[in-house]
Amino acid sequence: MRIEVLEEILGENDRTAGANRADFRSNGIRVVNVMSSPGAGKTSLLREVFRRAGDGTRFGVVEGDIETTIDADRLAETGVAVSLVNTANGFGGECHLDATMVRSALPRLPLGELDVVIIENVGNLVCPAEFDVGEDARLMVFSVTEGEEKPLKYPVMFRSADAIVVNKIDLLPHLDFDLDLFLHHVESVHPGVRILMASARTGDGIDDIATWIRGS
Amino acid sequence: MRIEVLEEILGENDRTAGANRADFRSNGIRVVNVMSSPGAGKTSLLREVFRRAGDGTRFGVVEGDIETTIDADRLAETGVAVSLVNTANGFGGECHLDATMVRSALPRLPLGELDVVIIENVGNLVCPAEFDVGEDARLMVFSVTEGEEKPLKYPVMFRSADAIVVNKIDLLPHLDFDLDLFLHHVESVHPGVRILMASARTGDGIDDIATWIRGS
Repeated sequence: MRIEVLEEILGENDRTAGANRADFRSNGIRVVNVMSSPGAGKTSLLREVFRRAGDGTRFGVVEGDIETTIDADRLAETGVAVSLVNTANGFGGECHLDATMVRSALPRLPLGELDVVIIENVGNLVCPAEFDVGEDARLMVFSVTEGEEKPLKYPVMFRSADAIVVNKIDLLPHLDFDLDLFLHHVESVHPGVRILMASARTGDGIDDIATWIRGS
Repeated sequence: MRIEVLEEILGENDRTAGANRADFRSNGIRVVNVMSSPGAGKTSLLREVFRRAGDGTRFGVVEGDIETTIDADRLAETGVAVSLVNTANGFGGECHLDATMVRSALPRLPLGELDVVIIENVGNLVCPAEFDVGEDARLMVFSVTEGEEKPLKYPVMFRSADAIVVNKIDLLPHLDFDLDLFLHHVESVHPGVRILMASARTGDGIDDIATWIRGS
């Protein structure tokens, strides 16, 4: 029965993801689902992307967190439209966003006035990868402080990503992190995936991330 | 029905956790459940603890990972008994250990010859905190690379911990991490919790962690 209920939940999710996708498409919006471990730097990277969006791209955000408005506030400071989903508020404190949670956030975004919607998922390297939320593409953020072997230990997430940001590269001189070995492991679980090297702190790579997010 | 099934799963978990606890106690074993985000440094810290266990403490490990034998192999190199649970192998690729998974690992440990069993949980700052696996105490590992606000964003885990290791302190000079603010946030969600500052890389704090783990 446990398996039947899980299948039912996932089937329901996929139907709602389809409804989200239809709403995004009818408004001509590109949607990117951004995922990572806690503390890998999603919000800091997105702040830099939004601050440099000098080409006039109109961004909106569905911000997913278990609790608090911290990340939503940090992103709203850059002037983008933000709709917050706290999973502890009616969604059982879930460790990921699902399509229903994202759908609940849409009425608070001015979809008709946006070009790109970022869905910043809950910090978690496992479950977010299992839920289609209606996105066009998935961007995974990895911090070089997390260790070379993570692609092997969390392959579902690494395979799920359409591009992988390797973040905090300013720390490389201070770490025993073998970048070549990490990239070898990434290639072994997801051959050919796009890699974007970056540091939210120095600004390295932010323009490339912005270009990728816009899909242009 | 979804809620009923979840309650059933959690009730079953608690019964199995009780059976695990009874088996550990009858063998005079102290059990510590070690939890963190991916890449916070659980395995590296435990390696240092085991290497310095010069007082003759006999350690065993239940190693929880979704896939791979990487961490289990790294710990077994130190000479401790390791029983691996890969959640992708019969447990649906779950993002945490539950009591049944830990129970499945026990026949491969020489319980009668051990003083302390470490349960190294799957790297995840959310779900592991929700499952009693039969432990005596919970040790959370936090890396200073993860950011000051994590206690506010993941309070269930921070409240669940009996002690918190603040790891990778050798990186503090290279980060914009406000340690006082982090400790203030910890205190706000879990007043009085024991804090252990450490670096697996330099060896700072390892002896204190070993002492805390032994409960002596």
